Amino acid sequence: MKTRDRILRTALALFNEEGEAEQTAVDLANVLEISPGNLYYHFKGKDAIIHVLFENFETEMRMILGGSDGVVSTLEDQWVFIYILLEEIYDFRFFYRDLGVLLDRYPDLAVRFRGLLAEKRRTIEALLEHLSGRGLIRIDPVLSGLLTDQILSTLTFWLSLDQIEGADLPPGDLIHRTVFQAMATIIPYMGDEGADMLGRMLAHYEQAIAD
Amino acid sequence: MKTRDRILRTALALFNEEGEAEQTAVDLANVLEISPGNLYYHFKGKDAIIHVLFENFETEMRMILGGSDGVVSTLEDQWVFIYILLEEIYDFRFFYRDLGVLLDRYPDLAVRFRGLLAEKRRTIEALLEHLSGRGLIRIDPVLSGLLTDQILSTLTFWLSLDQIEGADLPPGDLIHRTVFQAMATIIPYMGDEGADMLGRMLAHYEQAIAD
Repeated sequence: MKTRDRILRTALALFNEEGEAEQTAVDLANVLEISPGNLYYHFKGKDAIIHVLFENFETEMRMILGGSDGVVSTLEDQWVFIYILLEEIYDFRFFYRDLGVLLDRYPDLAVRFRGLLAEKRRTIEALLEHLSGRGLIRIDPVLSGLLTDQILSTLTFWLSLDQIEGADLPPGDLIHRTVFQAMATIIPYMGDEGADMLGRMLAHYEQAIAD
Repeated sequence: MKTRDRILRTALALFNEEGEAEQTAVDLANVLEISPGNLYYHFKGKDAIIHVLFENFETEMRMILGGSDGVVSTLEDQWVFIYILLEEIYDFRFFYRDLGVLLDRYPDLAVRFRGLLAEKRRTIEALLEHLSGRGLIRIDPVLSGLLTDQILSTLTFWLSLDQIEGADLPPGDLIHRTVFQAMATIIPYMGDEGADMLGRMLAHYEQAIAD
């Protein structure tokens, strides 16, 4: 692996494990067993590394969000789609973990993070419209806005909530539970089909965490 | 005002405004226009101040949460109750803003924060049971658990979501909007009464932010 790639991978793993705030460029050089000078040759400090990591995250998130258009229709499709989205967030989890501090420190990233959140919101709106268009849910426009907020909030703060609650689930189980939580929010808008769909979702969830 | 109280008030205002991570005990002494030695006479460093602030927050939160028992029944009662809860959180907002970092740094506070969250959860459960007992909502036990999670998540991450979205609402409006969001989650479980209740909630919300 090229040194540049090795630096990025190691930085990501270190920030995810130990939190970004406590780590310096020198700490990172020590973990990599290279000199600070060699690190500096590739990246002009920790800020530069964080910016490249954010760019990678942003590119991958936009690909995933853009890829949902028109292809996500069955329960299983939606499950997989949200799973992939959350897995991507998990891979870059330090951005979400220390969000307040990071947004304060890097105002340019705050703007771009806000852009990603807006795209996430549009994707959720499109999915709800799709379900509504197919007659699978019936929902008042005001409640549809609130439901979008709820799903967005679940898909943004799941890692923080898990951290506070200290439940310490294996990542795969935590992701499946979050997919279930996000998807189950539409159940009350499904009318009589809701009870059946909830049963199918629960079965799918139990199967997923048993695998 | 006694010096000790003045230190606590100023520290809280400073942490809320500027974030806790960037502030040192010396910064705080400068804002207070007292010597670091005088500050140290009252509190043995920033950690001691944070612990006392957390104790104050904890005491007030437990009083509010405990006070809901049996007295919150009408829509207006519930609105006021959640408003007071969120106002309390707003007063100590730096704990929520930099939560991940703070929980890492103070493991003892993480345990107590977790305890507060558990008490918040029990209060929400009790409110939902109360509504269910009076026949105002009908809800499957699985969905009731998920609804509790949603409300808890809304009441915990509202400040973070507002910060990321950068909407910059006046605090009172933001609190009213969050009360509306939390309460509207029960609408789909109200059956035919739901549409009427949503109308009443919207009117109450619009009145509240116009005042």
